[in-house]
Amino acid sequence: MSTHAYDKSNALMERARKVVPGGIYGHQNPAFLTKGAFPSFFARGEGSHIWDVDGNEYIDYMASYGPIVLGHRHPRVEEAARRQMDQGNCFNAPTPLWVELAEHMVSITPFADWVAFAKNGSDVCTWATVLARHATGRRKIAMCTGAYHGAHTWCTPAPGGVTPEDRANIVYFRYNDLNSLRELVADNQGDIAGVILSPFRHDAGHDQELPVEGFLNGVRELCDRNGIVFILDDVRAGFRLHMGGSGELFGVRPDLSTYCKAMGNGYPISACMGKDSLRQAAQEVFFTGSYFTSAVPMAASLACLKELASIGGIERMRMMGEKLRDGLLAQARTHRFAVTYSGPPAIPYMTFKDDNGHHDRMKLFAGECARGGVYLAPRHNWFLTAAHTEEDIARTLQVTDAAFAAVRKQFSA
Amino acid sequence: MSTHAYDKSNALMERARKVVPGGIYGHQNPAFLTKGAFPSFFARGEGSHIWDVDGNEYIDYMASYGPIVLGHRHPRVEEAARRQMDQGNCFNAPTPLWVELAEHMVSITPFADWVAFAKNGSDVCTWATVLARHATGRRKIAMCTGAYHGAHTWCTPAPGGVTPEDRANIVYFRYNDLNSLRELVADNQGDIAGVILSPFRHDAGHDQELPVEGFLNGVRELCDRNGIVFILDDVRAGFRLHMGGSGELFGVRPDLSTYCKAMGNGYPISACMGKDSLRQAAQEVFFTGSYFTSAVPMAASLACLKELASIGGIERMRMMGEKLRDGLLAQARTHRFAVTYSGPPAIPYMTFKDDNGHHDRMKLFAGECARGGVYLAPRHNWFLTAAHTEEDIARTLQVTDAAFAAVRKQFSA
Repeated sequence: MSTHAYDKSNALMERARKVVPGGIYGHQNPAFLTKGAFPSFFARGEGSHIWDVDGNEYIDYMASYGPIVLGHRHPRVEEAARRQMDQGNCFNAPTPLWVELAEHMVSITPFADWVAFAKNGSDVCTWATVLARHATGRRKIAMCTGAYHGAHTWCTPAPGGVTPEDRANIVYFRYNDLNSLRELVADNQGDIAGVILSPFRHDAGHDQELPVEGFLNGVRELCDRNGIVFILDDVRAGFRLHMGGSGELFGVRPDLSTYCKAMGNGYPISACMGKDSLRQAAQEVFFTGSYFTSAVPMAASLACLKELASIGGIERMRMMGEKLRDGLLAQARTHRFAVTYSGPPAIPYMTFKDDNGHHDRMKLFAGECARGGVYLAPRHNWFLTAAHTEEDIARTLQVTDAAFAAVRKQFSA
Repeated sequence: MSTHAYDKSNALMERARKVVPGGIYGHQNPAFLTKGAFPSFFARGEGSHIWDVDGNEYIDYMASYGPIVLGHRHPRVEEAARRQMDQGNCFNAPTPLWVELAEHMVSITPFADWVAFAKNGSDVCTWATVLARHATGRRKIAMCTGAYHGAHTWCTPAPGGVTPEDRANIVYFRYNDLNSLRELVADNQGDIAGVILSPFRHDAGHDQELPVEGFLNGVRELCDRNGIVFILDDVRAGFRLHMGGSGELFGVRPDLSTYCKAMGNGYPISACMGKDSLRQAAQEVFFTGSYFTSAVPMAASLACLKELASIGGIERMRMMGEKLRDGLLAQARTHRFAVTYSGPPAIPYMTFKDDNGHHDRMKLFAGECARGGVYLAPRHNWFLTAAHTEEDIARTLQVTDAAFAAVRKQFSA
C-alpha cells in the first residue's frame, strides 16, 4: 500500500460538486473507478506519464479514454497545432488543412472516397445512421445489444429521458452471432437502413471479444444482399489497430466508418468516412457544428496520423501491449488467479473470473495499481500509446505484481 | 467592382469536392452565399480582420458564425490556451479549470446553480431537452416553427434521413405569439416536458425579431403554472448581449440555458447551465464525449469571459453595432432602398424589402461587400466582435455605400 495522497483532488471534487452535476459526469465519472483510490483531477502529462493535482505520477494506460495515441504533448503534434494557432483557428470557411487532412485520410483508407469532419464520436455515429436512412429510404438501424455508439438517445447506456420513440427504429442483434442478424434482417425485410457495429466487441465492464471467423464478412454479405449500409464504428479502435481502419485488420470493408479518439492525439476532432455510392446522400443530410471546420485540430490530426505511420505506431502499441499482456498473465498464474485478458493487445482489458461480473477484485487491483503509480480503469478497456516504453512496462509489472498480491491477501483462494 | 481573385480558393474547392461531400457542408456551405463572390478557404485572422488563401483581406462580420467574440487571435485567450498546452489538454479526469470555469460561469449567471460542458451547440440543446423529459417524466418538447436548435434529427432544418418518430414528441408554436403556446399547452395538457426558444428570433434568412413586450415573461409564467422546463437556447446570442445570459437583457430567467459560440473565442466548448431543481436529473442523464473535459478550451473560455467583462465587450459590440446600423440605414435611404435592419445591434441582419424573401438584392449586396473587403453573409445574421474599431466601421461604410450603388444599378427603382 503506497501513500498517495489526494487532498487537492478531493478538495477540488468538493468544489466541483457544487457547480457541476455530480462533480464529474460521463465516462470520467469517479463512480466507475475504485472509491478513494483514484485522483479526480489532473495537472499535467508528458509522453506516457501523467501527474495529478497532488503531484502523484502515473504511467497512463487510459490515454484520456483513447484520444492520446502518441503520448501526451507529442512534440510534432504540438508544433503543428501552435503553427496553425499563429494564423488562427476558426474562420467563415475552412482552411487548406480541411482539404489536406481529407485527402490524406482518403489516401490511407482503402474503402473510402470521402470524409466529413465533426467534434464528437456521437456526432459521427449518429450522422452515419441518419445518412444510411436517407440513402436507403428505410427507417431501421440494427445495432448489437450492449454496444456503445455514443450518448445520444437512440444508443445511450442510461435510460434517463429516453422516450420509446427514440428507439422505435432501433433493432438489436448479438455481436459474433451472425444468425441473430440473419433473423433480424428476415424479420424486418426491406426495412433495415444500416447495421452499425464496432470492429471488435468492447462493451464497458465486459470481457472483450474479437470477431469470430466469418462474422464480419457474414455481416458484409448480408448487407450486400439486402441493400443495407454497413457502418463500422471505429471511434474507439480507429488508428490504434491499423492505419487503414480497423476493418483492414479483420479483413472487412464497410460502407461508412466513424473515427474520433486517436485522430488528433487529444485535439478535438471526429470523422465519418464513406464510399462514393453514399456521397450524394452525404451532401443532403445536414451536418454542422460551430467548430467543425476549425483548423487547429486539423493541423494536429494531420501531424498525428503522419507521425503514427512514420514511427510505426500501430506496431509499437501492439508490441508493448503484448509485453504487458504476457507479464500480467504470468503474474496472474503466479498468484493463482484465473483472469480473462481480452481484446487486441493495444486495447486490452482484464477481468478476474471469480468476480463474476461484479468487479470487486478488479476494483481492488486497479486501486492498488493507481496507488502504485499505474493508471488503469477497473471496468473499461485500457489503451496503449506509441509513447509507452519497455521501461514503462517493466515498472508497470512491478506495480501489478504487488496489486495481484494485495488482491490475493483480501480474497483468499 | 474590385478585382478580388479567388484562384487558390477555387482550386482548393475543386480538390475539396473530391474528398468531402459537397466540398464544404453545413452552415459554411458556399450555396448560402453569393455565387462566385466569396472565397471558400481562409489563411489567417487577426482581430477583426481575416485573409483568404488568395491574400484578400476582409473586415469580418461573421466571426466564424459567432465564436470569435474578442477578435481573432486575441492575446489573452491565446496566452491562456498556450499556457495550458504546456501542461497538456486531455487526461483521464478534468483539470482544475473544469471547476474554475464552472464556478466563474455560475458566479456571473443569476439564474444558474450549475453548468455541464460539451463541444457543440447541438450537444447541449439536445441534452437540455432530454434532461427536461427526465426531470418531468413527460415526453413532449415545444419549439418555435422555423427555429434552429442544432443539426440533430429532432430539429435539423433539412429533411434528409429524418423519420416521423424523430419528431413524434416535438410540438410547435410561433415566436412572439404567446397564444400559440397557450393553445399548445392546453392541447397537450400534462405532456409538455420543456419549451425551448432563443432569446430573440434569428431564423436563418428571415428578418430577426426581438421579443415583444410580455412574450418571454408570458412563456415563463406558462412554464411555471404547468410544471414545464423553460430552456433558453443562448447558443448564438450568449455572451454577446449580456454577461449574465441573454435572458437578463430581456428580463426573463430560464430553468436551463445553453451556450456555445462566444464562450471560448473559437476554442471548442459549449455548455448547459441550470437551476438547482434540475441538478439531480442532470446527474442521471448520461452526457459525455471524448473531449468534454479537455483543459485547453476551458483555459481559453475562462480568459475569454473575463476579458469580455473587463473591457466592457458587450457595450463595445453594441456601440459599434449601432454605428454600423445607423450608417447602413442612412445609406439605404440615400440609395432609395427600403431595408429591414433587425435584431440587436451586436447580432444584426439586413434584408431588402423588395427581395420579398428571395435574397436577390441581398446576395448582390453581400457579394459586392466581399469584393470590397467586407465579409457579411446574405442570408444569415452577422456578428460584431469586441475587436471592431471605429476605423473598421468607417471603412465598412465606404464599401457598403458602393455596394448599395451597385445593387441600385442592377435593380432600378
